[in-house]
Amino acid sequence: MVQGRRASLPAGLLDELAAICGDEAVRTSADELDRHGHDESYHATAAPDAVVYPSSTEHVAGVVRACGAAGVAMVPFGAGSSLEGHVAALGGGVCIDTTRLNRILRVGVEDLDVTVQAGVTRLQLEQRLREDGVFFPVDPGADATLGGMVATGASGTTAVRYGTMRENVLSLTVVLPDGEVMRTRSRARKSSAGYDLTHLFIGSEGTLGVICEATLRVQPLPEAASAAVCSFPSVHEAVECVIATIQSGIPVARIELLDEVQMDATMRRHPLGYRVAPTLLLDFHGSAAGVAEQAERVREIAAEHGCPDFVWASGEDERRRLWRARHEAYEAGLALRPGSRGFTTDVCVPISRLADCIVETQADVAASGLLATVVGHVGDGNFHVCMLIDPAQPQELERARALNGALVRRALAMGGTCTGEHGVGSGKARYLELEFDPPALALMRTLKRAVDPDGLFNPGKLTEAVDAAQ
Amino acid sequence: MVQGRRASLPAGLLDELAAICGDEAVRTSADELDRHGHDESYHATAAPDAVVYPSSTEHVAGVVRACGAAGVAMVPFGAGSSLEGHVAALGGGVCIDTTRLNRILRVGVEDLDVTVQAGVTRLQLEQRLREDGVFFPVDPGADATLGGMVATGASGTTAVRYGTMRENVLSLTVVLPDGEVMRTRSRARKSSAGYDLTHLFIGSEGTLGVICEATLRVQPLPEAASAAVCSFPSVHEAVECVIATIQSGIPVARIELLDEVQMDATMRRHPLGYRVAPTLLLDFHGSAAGVAEQAERVREIAAEHGCPDFVWASGEDERRRLWRARHEAYEAGLALRPGSRGFTTDVCVPISRLADCIVETQADVAASGLLATVVGHVGDGNFHVCMLIDPAQPQELERARALNGALVRRALAMGGTCTGEHGVGSGKARYLELEFDPPALALMRTLKRAVDPDGLFNPGKLTEAVDAAQ
Repeated sequence: MVQGRRASLPAGLLDELAAICGDEAVRTSADELDRHGHDESYHATAAPDAVVYPSSTEHVAGVVRACGAAGVAMVPFGAGSSLEGHVAALGGGVCIDTTRLNRILRVGVEDLDVTVQAGVTRLQLEQRLREDGVFFPVDPGADATLGGMVATGASGTTAVRYGTMRENVLSLTVVLPDGEVMRTRSRARKSSAGYDLTHLFIGSEGTLGVICEATLRVQPLPEAASAAVCSFPSVHEAVECVIATIQSGIPVARIELLDEVQMDATMRRHPLGYRVAPTLLLDFHGSAAGVAEQAERVREIAAEHGCPDFVWASGEDERRRLWRARHEAYEAGLALRPGSRGFTTDVCVPISRLADCIVETQADVAASGLLATVVGHVGDGNFHVCMLIDPAQPQELERARALNGALVRRALAMGGTCTGEHGVGSGKARYLELEFDPPALALMRTLKRAVDPDGLFNPGKLTEAVDAAQ
Repeated sequence: MVQGRRASLPAGLLDELAAICGDEAVRTSADELDRHGHDESYHATAAPDAVVYPSSTEHVAGVVRACGAAGVAMVPFGAGSSLEGHVAALGGGVCIDTTRLNRILRVGVEDLDVTVQAGVTRLQLEQRLREDGVFFPVDPGADATLGGMVATGASGTTAVRYGTMRENVLSLTVVLPDGEVMRTRSRARKSSAGYDLTHLFIGSEGTLGVICEATLRVQPLPEAASAAVCSFPSVHEAVECVIATIQSGIPVARIELLDEVQMDATMRRHPLGYRVAPTLLLDFHGSAAGVAEQAERVREIAAEHGCPDFVWASGEDERRRLWRARHEAYEAGLALRPGSRGFTTDVCVPISRLADCIVETQADVAASGLLATVVGHVGDGNFHVCMLIDPAQPQELERARALNGALVRRALAMGGTCTGEHGVGSGKARYLELEFDPPALALMRTLKRAVDPDGLFNPGKLTEAVDAAQ
């Protein structure tokens, strides 16, 4: 008998869930509900009515059938590290926490693939793979679950070389809204067999079913890796250097931009002695000779674009310090304004328009009176403005929203997208109407209705979000 | 007034199509109908009732609306180079020939992307891109249209390095079954905005609408390229060499297997002096030093796997001769048995199972009394058995079909797929039932019904094919 049931769930549902997953796997304490009602962003909390922790795909199928029969909404939940309000239970209902689906089921070193349950986290996988000399290249920064990374179409600093989740998932096992368990495809490297069910679920944000297992491509650990730092007189010259580097066919593993505000913040937190100026951080993977050659060629290109001080960090300690500083960019930024919270944008534009997009946005930031840092996965044309907001000043949040709206419109006018990697959730939903033609949006809604006809999966998100949800 | 209309089309439809696309753009001659009723494979011809040649996306939308209103089936047609009966008009109706959609609309060198109309062919694009120092890496061999390559999810020899069509399409413009024109997404390198409409259409084989434009990723031409040839005592040792090469992180651009029968055929057609033995052809792309380093490392790995005679073809002439010989493998094979036609299989398995799959299949071939060659995109685990069939001997076709069926079952049992790159069409349809769970097939059919509720797009293919169609 489950304690603390809430009046808004149909009688008997929690007992049914407990019979499927075990008594202690069904939770309704205020703490649990609150923790599962929000992600790491500024979006408002919307708590579910209950949280259930399935331990197997069969458990998930049972939960989906029980909730479906009762007409109760379901929200899949991973690490809660998303940034666009993806997990807020806007329709109440049951949160399906996947963190007990935490087994690495198979590591195929010869095939360079791995099968994991959805609740396995990125760092858990990294640790396990290292012993076999391979790694999973997609790194969104947070220790997200792999299921969550699939659901949001995540990427990060290494996408320029290794691709995003879209390029690194071979197959998924999904519990569909009717409770059936489906594998999207085989684990062959290539297949032209039928409609691409795998990509239908990558980026589906919990609105089409529950991802329970994923088979992922992994990469051999590079023989050698080194990093480099180069600063530029302006963002324009830094981005021109990126374009020239990529056009030269140099297979950089990472190429990240930090603007002068971010470099100021980062050098305060990590006094590594680099200049406070628009800066590129690069990572090179390959053979020892290949890495040295890549770095030398980038040094030449950077010099042509006004970089006076290319620093090659070939030692592993120095390289790790550098990437740790990059990964803590967000925390470093927040420390510029103690007590502030971050409002992070996520546009992505064709790289030929990137410098203009960043510079025009920096002017908007200056005009707004807000303090903001810029970091960018510039090889992909994706960058984040992190505006440092005082939560006690509602008008700051309004200014940040207005600035984000202007930025999204600018990016769309340049042929870009409102979200390069964070997803839509409820936060970006209003911009889908601007980004897509009406027939494309109508087709997305057709797909949603076809797969989830009762609309029970993560209601109020993606194409079904309403502005009021924000 | 269009001449030669056929009784099976509703009165007035051809005039309507002529009003949209122009009188001479609507054809009903027997030659035209026959040519559009089959591809390059052994599958039987099923001629359409008319062929229409739209010159713009708006033409296509008009044709789709007119045929839709009349309840007439539509079959999109590119170069007719597919291999699984994709273009046979099993439901009669109108063939939409896309070859007048032949403009390259935009080349974005800084963004490494290009936008083409669907009827642009691979070689046409290659020629245009060369002047800008970039190339489109997907090469299925045939001079297919880019629209056709999208529709079948094509790939080829370079997928091991550059990916298949699935990894190289940024955005599509599609005329949907209701006649609306839709762009699937922006041309940003990355996007997490909404359901992945692009991948819904990659591999959809004309069953969900007509692809009219594609925005594709292109690559910088490598600074240097070289090839290598190495022969092995057995297929097992050749495949072990491939696995070790890929695990070492060597970014080979191509790694192709030819078995001893294929090498015999190829050396007869192109007397280049290589041994008649299981052989790997490799291509290396990169900097001059990088290419030399890659080749040297593969030479060492090959020697460890029993290759006595690694030949490095660093001269561009020699390299071109070698790859021409590979690309003419099919013609070389046919010449082993003058008058024969090829029956080509297309399974793809995890590479750890590849050698077993090939060797067991070679034993089946020997037992069948058929003559067959094997070529493989072994870096992906994909290989083709080409059985040389006497068209006058129906029992040979039956034996080939039986052998293909056994091969598909073997590949599926090994975790593979019935088609690595040729697609389903009508030829592989019966194997979808073996490859996918019932819920996955049911979901595919749900998607088809949702997007094309009247079932007018390429009927009898993919999930809707019936065995009788073969």
